Amino acid sequence: MGKMMYECIKKEKNTKARLGKVKTNYGTFDTPMFMPVGTRATIKGLSPEEVKACGSGIILANTYHLWLRPGEDLIDRAGGLHKFMNYDGPILTDSGGYQVFSLVKSKKDIEEEGVHFKSHIDGKKLFLTPELSIQIQNKLDSDIAMSFDECPPASASHEYLKQSVERTLRWAERGKKVHQNERQALFGIVQGGPYEDLRRYSAIETVKMNFDGYSIGGVANDGESKEDMYHAIDYSVPYLPEDKARYLMGVGDPIDIIEGVIRGVDLFDCVLPTRIARHGQAFTRNGKITLKNAKWKEDFTPIEEGCDCYCCKHYTKAYVRHLLLVDEMFGGRLLSIHNIRFLIRLTEELREAIKEDRLLEYKEAFLNSYEKKIPLE
Amino acid sequence: MGKMMYECIKKEKNTKARLGKVKTNYGTFDTPMFMPVGTRATIKGLSPEEVKACGSGIILANTYHLWLRPGEDLIDRAGGLHKFMNYDGPILTDSGGYQVFSLVKSKKDIEEEGVHFKSHIDGKKLFLTPELSIQIQNKLDSDIAMSFDECPPASASHEYLKQSVERTLRWAERGKKVHQNERQALFGIVQGGPYEDLRRYSAIETVKMNFDGYSIGGVANDGESKEDMYHAIDYSVPYLPEDKARYLMGVGDPIDIIEGVIRGVDLFDCVLPTRIARHGQAFTRNGKITLKNAKWKEDFTPIEEGCDCYCCKHYTKAYVRHLLLVDEMFGGRLLSIHNIRFLIRLTEELREAIKEDRLLEYKEAFLNSYEKKIPLE
Repeated sequence: MGKMMYECIKKEKNTKARLGKVKTNYGTFDTPMFMPVGTRATIKGLSPEEVKACGSGIILANTYHLWLRPGEDLIDRAGGLHKFMNYDGPILTDSGGYQVFSLVKSKKDIEEEGVHFKSHIDGKKLFLTPELSIQIQNKLDSDIAMSFDECPPASASHEYLKQSVERTLRWAERGKKVHQNERQALFGIVQGGPYEDLRRYSAIETVKMNFDGYSIGGVANDGESKEDMYHAIDYSVPYLPEDKARYLMGVGDPIDIIEGVIRGVDLFDCVLPTRIARHGQAFTRNGKITLKNAKWKEDFTPIEEGCDCYCCKHYTKAYVRHLLLVDEMFGGRLLSIHNIRFLIRLTEELREAIKEDRLLEYKEAFLNSYEKKIPLE
Repeated sequence: MGKMMYECIKKEKNTKARLGKVKTNYGTFDTPMFMPVGTRATIKGLSPEEVKACGSGIILANTYHLWLRPGEDLIDRAGGLHKFMNYDGPILTDSGGYQVFSLVKSKKDIEEEGVHFKSHIDGKKLFLTPELSIQIQNKLDSDIAMSFDECPPASASHEYLKQSVERTLRWAERGKKVHQNERQALFGIVQGGPYEDLRRYSAIETVKMNFDGYSIGGVANDGESKEDMYHAIDYSVPYLPEDKARYLMGVGDPIDIIEGVIRGVDLFDCVLPTRIARHGQAFTRNGKITLKNAKWKEDFTPIEEGCDCYCCKHYTKAYVRHLLLVDEMFGGRLLSIHNIRFLIRLTEELREAIKEDRLLEYKEAFLNSYEKKIPLE
């Protein structure tokens, strides 16, 4: 087949949520879906088989990191990212924009042509442009590539964001022109911060360029409020076509995934499940738990009763706690598996709820359990 | 069944090598066999399934480390070590002697009653006796326990070693008296350094106590020569009964495994395969290779052609090198799998060579390949 295709299967009655199917050259998966992050061509500590056993439909890899090491040319010569990392399922790459903008020291490093910054590895001066980002992604040969967008801080003014949205549109156009991998879909990215007018404008103009799918960017910034995130989605989605996938970039908090799905989002990604695993934390239906806490010392039950992940089927909290306390890698691995499975299982349950038009009831039940320790007003 | 049993199946014609079978409550395995080391109730970075897929017949866990964390009582309450770490194959525990003697600061800390030392974790003063070592191992519920022996340095004099051998015999007797786990075999340990008279005496006196198997200790010390190690085996084995397993403690160099098998040894253990993996090294038939070397940068072939391990079946040197250079855990995991499989495959080939009475030919071919870069004299 050619490039990735999205099909909307069903819309939920009471919300904007939708059930969909994404077909790629490396397999088909259902949406809503959470994508585990494999920054450097590996999901931290896990094998491709373990990631698939979590029910993952698609994973994400980071263009910035792979560009620097081992380099897109090496991956190209290896036969592309799928072959290089032995992952024969769908892969999405980001544009590198998010990482590059986090490394910018001064506003004058952001030019119309591209972005100047220093490598986080050796301080080497580098320059990333919309064209180069797409060319790198073409060589990585992911199934879905992202346009290179400006990623402004959460504190950016309406005036700054207006100019930034215009620039992101010009960059999207430039990237689209050089995109040459016919097996690879290219998504446009909607920006505009928390402002209704800017999101609407960004969405309408981006859609005019006819991308293969649309991302909602600028929502996983430090310091942004939940309300701003939900508004950004609400202000963007109405202008996105129904026959294209919608991807909320960088979001992996369970409640945010539910709120995103209710607002019409299909795809999510986040480093959260593996990052909190390395800090010894696990998602559960009753909120996050910290396995190093003494209360789990002799708890010979799984992290979560009823969870079908490899960790919960075979290991106890006491064992995982022991591994974490003696700094054994296998502890983080087991927690990563559990946390990724938790988020993917959440999307599976959301899909079931959409099928049965009971998404709002599902949300209420989930929140009651997940946030039960927070007193209601 | 009761405790572990060893059966000698065949003796090789031209050497002292033997083919054997060990039956335990957690399964049967063939000898010669290499045991991967799971110090803290986990083989560094690997799942039990991965260890088994390497063909491992039995693994080793360290009594000293588990005594300190999480403690033998916790493991007992978890249902024993097999259940705690989700490993349903045979497990051997050491006595803690090796670790404790490495922590002794002064000779006066070694008393007839036991050994004073400080915890490597928090400096707490601790005291380990032959009885306590066995009691801890009884609670861990391993399939094979080791007697608590004195582990003298490689530099110890004949006079010191003579007294040490006597003490080790008294300690073996004391441990045997308190051993109470009827599912658990108990091995005696032969000491005596590189001295023929001491090894003979130690072996004969230890065998008189009728243990379930016999270990050859004091051979994996820093500074010991290969000749001393091979002599220690040669001087011990003739006095060990044919119907009991023989275990050469702490040895995992491929050539030493071959030399040990030729001299009549059945079991080996070593942290080497996982330790060199963490340093980015892999065993191959042509000697060890260092994956970080630039020469492997674009080598899209497996670490070892023809190797049937998970790493070699699915990943290239270039990918493993990339993972190591960006400090991704999965790199060490893949190398650990390869290195453990390498040593276990070596023992499989040794078993085939014993069956066909061509062990010396096998050794010559292996050495020609493994050490080919070393000019012959």
